[in-house]
Amino acid sequence: MPYVNIRIAGTLSREQKAQIAAELTDTLERVALKPAAYTYITFDEVADENWAIAGKLLDEESL
Amino acid sequence: MPYVNIRIAGTLSREQKAQIAAELTDTLERVALKPAAYTYITFDEVADENWAIAGKLLDEESL
Amino acid sequence: MPYVNIRIAGTLSREQKAQIAAELTDTLERVALKPAAYTYITFDEVADENWAIAGKLLDEESL
Amino acid sequence: MPYVNIRIAGTLSREQKAQIAAELTDTLERVALKPAAYTYITFDEVADENWAIAGKLLDEESL
Amino acid sequence: MPYVNIRIAGTLSREQKAQIAAELTDTLERVALKPAAYTYITFDEVADENWAIAGKLLDEESL
Amino acid sequence: MPYVNIRIAGTLSREQKAQIAAELTDTLERVALKPAAYTYITFDEVADENWAIAGKLLDEESL
Repeated sequence: MPYVNIRIAGTLSREQKAQIAAELTDTLERVALKPAAYTYITFDEVADENWAIAGKLLDEESL
Repeated sequence: MPYVNIRIAGTLSREQKAQIAAELTDTLERVALKPAAYTYITFDEVADENWAIAGKLLDEESL
Repeated sequence: MPYVNIRIAGTLSREQKAQIAAELTDTLERVALKPAAYTYITFDEVADENWAIAGKLLDEESL
Repeated sequence: MPYVNIRIAGTLSREQKAQIAAELTDTLERVALKPAAYTYITFDEVADENWAIAGKLLDEESL
Repeated sequence: MPYVNIRIAGTLSREQKAQIAAELTDTLERVALKPAAYTYITFDEVADENWAIAGKLLDEESL
Repeated sequence: MPYVNIRIAGTLSREQKAQIAAELTDTLERVALKPAAYTYITFDEVADENWAIAGKLLDEESL
């Protein structure tokens, strides 16, 4: 029963999210023996304005 | 001072969220002796495209 | 498929956690129509030294 | 490599987020010796309807 | 700059965690074009007593 | 009513946590006008074995 939260800055296409979910679920089943049916994965797509690295918001460059 | 994060796929009506918050706050006060005034509850309504179970995004069926 | 994370300062007994899980799962099924079998609840018991309110760690009084 | 998630009810201006990110990154570098380049901060701006205190959603007063 | 939090019930060996981290970082780089150097992954190993499914703590069977 | 979760690899002393909590609460009050009494901050001290960057666990160097 893994629960995985993936947070990325910006957005992903539906195809990217589907591929990541498929691969990660396979990894968890193969490596950690977690049944796929019990694996939840959520994606949080965070706006650049809401993510900071090194003390600066990610959208700073474009201002 | 509990902090509770409730993540659901899809959306809830305002009435559903109010009812869940009231019942859960009561549960935590009655069972865990946590004063209601200190209980924070947040709801994250996650799009079906951003939630996967068993390696598939929840919106897959409808494509 | 709700995922709920309950964070409390201090600890709860096993009986308290079992009761909270049972009541909250019932609330989510009854109010939000979420099947109990899909509801995950996790508890994080956070040490008083790791929780601050109003800028003070919760263990401060006892020092 | 700290990862910090700041959740607030309502919204913040871009300037407020930039200032908070700058100050918190400085605090973590000065107090905890964490290099600024490794510090990630994310902001979650939660609608009042999705945040409850004391068993009531925060938008209740205005209804 | 993805941040990923993987929560599992029970524990994983160091080797399992290293393998999962390697595969997931590769997935995110290949599929989502996220540079590996910016990918943070954390594991939370949650005691069975602190994880409930269907309203029951996971350690209930063994009591 | 901010809720802040600070996750760091390794540990912090009680004094470091107290100082970070005091400074961050002040920042949020001064910059975002959030009353200190409503600000919750939690610290998660994550073992190096449970944190990966660039696909490698942080304890790898010392093995």
